[in-house]
Amino acid sequence: MEIEELVQQLQQLLEAKEYRKLRELTEDMQPADLAEAMEEMDVQQRLLLFRLMKKEVAAEIFAWLGQEARGELIEKFSDTELTAALEEMALDDAADILEEMPASVVKRVLAKSSKKTRDSLNRLLNYPADSAGSIMTPEYIRLRKDMTVTQALDVIRREGENSETVYTLYVTERNKLLGVVSARDLLLAGPDQTMEELMDDNVISVQVTDDKEEVANELNRYGFIAMPVVDSEGMLVGIVTVDDATDVLIEEATEDFERMAAMQPSEDSYFATSVFKHARNRIPWLLVLMLSATFTGMILTHYEAAFAAMPLLVSFIPMLMDTGGNCGNQSSTLMIRGMALGEIEPKDILRVVWKEFRVALLVGVVLAVVNGVRIWIMYGDFMIGVLIAVTLLAAVVIAKLIGCMLPLGVQKVGLDPALIASPFITTLVDACVITVYFTIAVQMFSALQG
Amino acid sequence: MEIEELVQQLQQLLEAKEYRKLRELTEDMQPADLAEAMEEMDVQQRLLLFRLMKKEVAAEIFAWLGQEARGELIEKFSDTELTAALEEMALDDAADILEEMPASVVKRVLAKSSKKTRDSLNRLLNYPADSAGSIMTPEYIRLRKDMTVTQALDVIRREGENSETVYTLYVTERNKLLGVVSARDLLLAGPDQTMEELMDDNVISVQVTDDKEEVANELNRYGFIAMPVVDSEGMLVGIVTVDDATDVLIEEATEDFERMAAMQPSEDSYFATSVFKHARNRIPWLLVLMLSATFTGMILTHYEAAFAAMPLLVSFIPMLMDTGGNCGNQSSTLMIRGMALGEIEPKDILRVVWKEFRVALLVGVVLAVVNGVRIWIMYGDFMIGVLIAVTLLAAVVIAKLIGCMLPLGVQKVGLDPALIASPFITTLVDACVITVYFTIAVQMFSALQG
Repeated sequence: MEIEELVQQLQQLLEAKEYRKLRELTEDMQPADLAEAMEEMDVQQRLLLFRLMKKEVAAEIFAWLGQEARGELIEKFSDTELTAALEEMALDDAADILEEMPASVVKRVLAKSSKKTRDSLNRLLNYPADSAGSIMTPEYIRLRKDMTVTQALDVIRREGENSETVYTLYVTERNKLLGVVSARDLLLAGPDQTMEELMDDNVISVQVTDDKEEVANELNRYGFIAMPVVDSEGMLVGIVTVDDATDVLIEEATEDFERMAAMQPSEDSYFATSVFKHARNRIPWLLVLMLSATFTGMILTHYEAAFAAMPLLVSFIPMLMDTGGNCGNQSSTLMIRGMALGEIEPKDILRVVWKEFRVALLVGVVLAVVNGVRIWIMYGDFMIGVLIAVTLLAAVVIAKLIGCMLPLGVQKVGLDPALIASPFITTLVDACVITVYFTIAVQMFSALQG
Repeated sequence: MEIEELVQQLQQLLEAKEYRKLRELTEDMQPADLAEAMEEMDVQQRLLLFRLMKKEVAAEIFAWLGQEARGELIEKFSDTELTAALEEMALDDAADILEEMPASVVKRVLAKSSKKTRDSLNRLLNYPADSAGSIMTPEYIRLRKDMTVTQALDVIRREGENSETVYTLYVTERNKLLGVVSARDLLLAGPDQTMEELMDDNVISVQVTDDKEEVANELNRYGFIAMPVVDSEGMLVGIVTVDDATDVLIEEATEDFERMAAMQPSEDSYFATSVFKHARNRIPWLLVLMLSATFTGMILTHYEAAFAAMPLLVSFIPMLMDTGGNCGNQSSTLMIRGMALGEIEPKDILRVVWKEFRVALLVGVVLAVVNGVRIWIMYGDFMIGVLIAVTLLAAVVIAKLIGCMLPLGVQKVGLDPALIASPFITTLVDACVITVYFTIAVQMFSALQG
């Protein structure tokens, strides 16, 4: 792998004390590669390398590092060093990193920062953790509507270094957002055209308090490079860029994966989360589900007489329960993901139920026939084959209907379907399947009655 | 909702035959909004509106429409109309749409296209479905290394209209990729600087045959707006842009969701997939899992004598199996997602096992105590409480170890962990839990022996 080679190269230069060469090398590298290589080094080497780099490079790399590797560096840093790095960084990255740090350190670091940086960071840190404000940056380029293309290009030349993007530019009047001009428009236009002529005044923007996932979805939906963020009075307060929006989408998918596996989502990466926190994220849902599975167990005790008379019945329970659970999960996963992507909405419920019902019949018949025949042959008992086949068909239909309706219903009342649906569906389906199974069994086998 | 208002507005204008107004209105709108509104209309209205729009707008909207709505339009189109729309569109979008259509239609449409479009489309259509080639576009801006900034800006002005992006520009010599220049560099540079001075010649690029998910991950990792794609001889053949890469990442997450829920991923959206196809995607894994759950059932028949003597034991089976399955899924989900995001690698296995083992002990002890005590109180039987507590602790540890090791092992040998892990883990864990449960039960209760 390339990264391993890079690590070796850096370590050799460090050992040979080729500090000037290191400084030059790190300047030419892609920050993503350099950060990944530094994550592989031990913290002493990382610290040394960090101190050797040009300060702009160091600040950029600091933001690119994984949370675990950065945390180790922060512990070794002096407050002055940390403040210097944060001053050099993009403001949104600095705010994100401050959020990872203990409150006492944040306070000390902010106290040492310049007033301008401190004010901007404080403002960013004050937005709720899930809001557009928490992922936006206040570093963008503002133009006036009477500026010409030539003047606008001058502004870009002057302020471009410190702006998150120079590809989308915002036309404002006393902070009010009037329109958007793209660098593409500027490059394709004549030098004397004004921003007023070029700008798109049909501006799409989001509120600073909007949920960050919605903002990321919107940005992605429109195919924008950046989305302007305004406050309740329509004043432009920042922009969200496509890379940060993509990170949000990836993060939200991860949270859905975790919720669907009955966990509280972790804020941090797997290794950066402590054993204790991992346990705390996993226990609550396990307890809830365990108690609800007890309910299925109680239904079973109801049929004690039946399986005492015919113990073979018990051996089919795992297969029936698992199949029901799997069928339910298939449907609920399609619903939850479809809703997250905006392809399915609660109002589609009838269409969905009709579709899932037909799918369930097809799937149910295939499973019923395959298994009924297999059991008939294996146990030489036609009636048991029929019992299992009929139960399976019913189980698949019930599971798929619950699996599609529950997530849509949960979404409809404003709850998170990923949180509720997947784990509960298994439990609900289990209870139904067991009831159906023994009800049919008792009907079919007179020996079980009484 | 805004979209509903938009639909109403468009429908009113259509009914009032205000065709000129519609033409103007559609030109000013965001394509994403217009496409969504058109999806809500019936196909006749959609077709009428489509024919009223300026042809550039119509072509763009055509690419933005959802697959279902577009499919309905295609059925109504004449070949000439379809060809005209494809000619106007970005080449990568045109290729994607052709891939949705029946082969016979594709052949007719290509036959009617201009030679240049046909050649480009044929080349794009020939790349494997999962390759970088399948998501790239050949429409980008190429510069020569001796060009000055002024000359480069002229090229952008000339070719920008037909290029996917003007923000990343490629310096080539006889098609060989020499370096990359960003529009930002051009805007911040002096007019006489040459591309050779400005370009970054340490170019990151991908191969046209590389897997599209890897390409999307790389682009995202580097924070690029576009990634150059080269062939085996280092010739630049196209670029992948950030919006297409984001779509790939979202699509791959969806496929992982589907695989983890024991389904074959669908190429199309939920509603665009037929009932028959849905069933076909879901049946195979259900069958495999059902047969493997039968294995658990066979282990159960082994203990028939035990639960015939003590039927209460059966009622704890669902709770033990579900808890084991849930614990295993928690761990495997964290592994699979962590690997997809590059946070966890197979070589981390020892670290992971050690972490999961400690988490399992914590979780197991909590679940064991809560349930042991509950059962002791509910059934007034201390020994049953101990049996369930000990089994639970063992189940959690076994489930978490299987749940973390299996996905890493599967990845290590080059298989897809999402495909194998989740469904199999439940089955494997079930079998282990049942065995542990009855083994301990038989040891503890002498009545069950013999």
